[in-house]
Amino acid sequence: MKRAMILGGGMVGSAIAMDLAKGGDLAVTVADSRDEVLDRIKSRCPIETVRADLGDAARVTRIVAGQDVVIGALPSVLGLQTLRAVIEAGRNYCDISFMPEDPKQLSALAVERGVTAVVDCGVAPGMSNMLSGWVSRELDVRERLTIYVGGLPVVRSWPFEYKAGFAPYDVIEEYTRPSRIVEHGRVVVKDALSETELLDFPGVGTLEAFNTDGLRTLIDTLDFPHMLEKTMRYPGHAHLMRILRETGFFGSEPIEVDGMKVQPRSVTAALMFPLWKFEPGEEDLVVLRVVAEGSKGGRPTRYRWDMIDRYDAATDTRAMSRTTGYPAAIMARLIADRRFDKPGVHPPEIPGREPGILDAVLAELEKRGIRFEARVEPIAR
Amino acid sequence: MKRAMILGGGMVGSAIAMDLAKGGDLAVTVADSRDEVLDRIKSRCPIETVRADLGDAARVTRIVAGQDVVIGALPSVLGLQTLRAVIEAGRNYCDISFMPEDPKQLSALAVERGVTAVVDCGVAPGMSNMLSGWVSRELDVRERLTIYVGGLPVVRSWPFEYKAGFAPYDVIEEYTRPSRIVEHGRVVVKDALSETELLDFPGVGTLEAFNTDGLRTLIDTLDFPHMLEKTMRYPGHAHLMRILRETGFFGSEPIEVDGMKVQPRSVTAALMFPLWKFEPGEEDLVVLRVVAEGSKGGRPTRYRWDMIDRYDAATDTRAMSRTTGYPAAIMARLIADRRFDKPGVHPPEIPGREPGILDAVLAELEKRGIRFEARVEPIAR
Repeated sequence: MKRAMILGGGMVGSAIAMDLAKGGDLAVTVADSRDEVLDRIKSRCPIETVRADLGDAARVTRIVAGQDVVIGALPSVLGLQTLRAVIEAGRNYCDISFMPEDPKQLSALAVERGVTAVVDCGVAPGMSNMLSGWVSRELDVRERLTIYVGGLPVVRSWPFEYKAGFAPYDVIEEYTRPSRIVEHGRVVVKDALSETELLDFPGVGTLEAFNTDGLRTLIDTLDFPHMLEKTMRYPGHAHLMRILRETGFFGSEPIEVDGMKVQPRSVTAALMFPLWKFEPGEEDLVVLRVVAEGSKGGRPTRYRWDMIDRYDAATDTRAMSRTTGYPAAIMARLIADRRFDKPGVHPPEIPGREPGILDAVLAELEKRGIRFEARVEPIAR
Repeated sequence: MKRAMILGGGMVGSAIAMDLAKGGDLAVTVADSRDEVLDRIKSRCPIETVRADLGDAARVTRIVAGQDVVIGALPSVLGLQTLRAVIEAGRNYCDISFMPEDPKQLSALAVERGVTAVVDCGVAPGMSNMLSGWVSRELDVRERLTIYVGGLPVVRSWPFEYKAGFAPYDVIEEYTRPSRIVEHGRVVVKDALSETELLDFPGVGTLEAFNTDGLRTLIDTLDFPHMLEKTMRYPGHAHLMRILRETGFFGSEPIEVDGMKVQPRSVTAALMFPLWKFEPGEEDLVVLRVVAEGSKGGRPTRYRWDMIDRYDAATDTRAMSRTTGYPAAIMARLIADRRFDKPGVHPPEIPGREPGILDAVLAELEKRGIRFEARVEPIAR
């Protein structure tokens, strides 16, 4: 029986663990430092657990020994050191930490150790990369790639109409960091939250999309002369966030207040994040749209995928956990089964452009109720 | 020659001083603790100055000796103690400190000392009270009194489209304090910033009015069964302020942030107030509308006054200083001339209902370019 270990048993890690355990053909272990997290997983599914401080890279290298594949579901700050620790243990890896550093710096080491590692393997980054990788091969001429993604509460509450499906500090970071996009083959930088546009999704309604720094590896791996990723929220949210940001409420430079040095961002977090927290059992949804334009067989062609996923009440699993965790779980299986075994550290567009991989992933996601509606159409010029 | 002393030489105090000195028939003195303030006034007008700490009430009692009338233009926190100090000196008084306490508590003392004091003598409170007092006598049956007032920058800048013509902390206080209004003869309390409505003013455009706690003395002195005061801003401002308030950014209770106890209001002030500051020479405007409904001679009748005033470039005096300061200056003259000499502490609706006072004030304001457009019309039922 092959063995898989999940590092981190939080919302997404536990969804991955339960998905992998379900098949019955893998020996699944979850590692986490928190007893309550491990207890929660055990109460729901007969999965092995290991209590370990995963901030200790040497400990990670030791506990992953003997695993056929390791899945990383840790905070982004631990992403790079965990990737290195798993590679050094010579274990294959699939990661959703979304580390800020460039994971490619460890690719040579992975090749040396014969390790296959796929990073950024969630929904976007993740599925968006896989689709983009696939379509970049499908098109003869690549022109324009646009990715829209948003995770949202189903019930919209004034004033923010938003809850954070992942660490809320990372959301503020996303609203603050300049957005790198590609125009005419060059990387240009735009304000986060800028260039809003409205998009309609059946059953969801109108969402507002705005620039965020989401292209990541695609800037280097693909050659569409125009590429951008936008984040989607309910209309009006971006406007409020711009106002808070421009007034200084997201600032991380301490300011002098009543004789103290205070980070405005910390005050904003203390006031706003409680309003951004999903209640237990609260429904969310995740919407992803990927549009690629170019030409195929001499004809201007547009490829479009739409995915709308919702909270699963039966397993109490949020759409954000499903759409982030299941692609990673499926990719981990493909790696464990050696369906993708290219040594090195790869973003998902690399397996995405290998024959058969995208189809396999989409088929597995469909079994889990995550459906990508694909459309291919000629572009009228 | 009669003598008048202005306590406080800030924006409004200096406008009052220069207005009173202009007539040439009054010996005018300005008292302030700040050299630069006194120097600024002297550089513009040959006015006597006294350097004195006006936070010291005993000092105030001493320096006002021998004045025919004293005008208070100090921060609201000094309002009550200064009123008492001036009364104790046996001097007549006119005040625009807008103190939070009830100034009527010193009325008996004023009567005892033979002092006439008119408080809240600005634009609103101030002219709004005077008009309301007048119309309350004019109507046989009083039904509804509505006061709309706003001080605004002429140039609207994203996102707040607002600059504070007076202490910005008092603006936050106004947006936070529950609003007392009168409905069916009873005082009811509404949220500040609530019940927005849109109003058009020629040459200004559409403004948005919302509840604030502005009726003050009118709740007790007048018997309209319906009374409310609303503050006006450019549309959208109230929405932003509600969001900041409801998220906790105006909170004065300290919260725990990064191991420190921080007042959110102080952080908001540090970030937002610099954006709310008028630039030197920046144009502002003040809009006031007072509407009174009732019946007169058996006929349902509506009285309406509209006043729009603007920054005066010739004297570099903002509309907020003009419309707050000139009513006080004019009332001070009426008191000095014993045109209004009723002993006690009075809000402006009391002189307002005395014959001839309102007409005299409006005529004097008109000389200064501040015009109240009055309209009396039957109400169609």
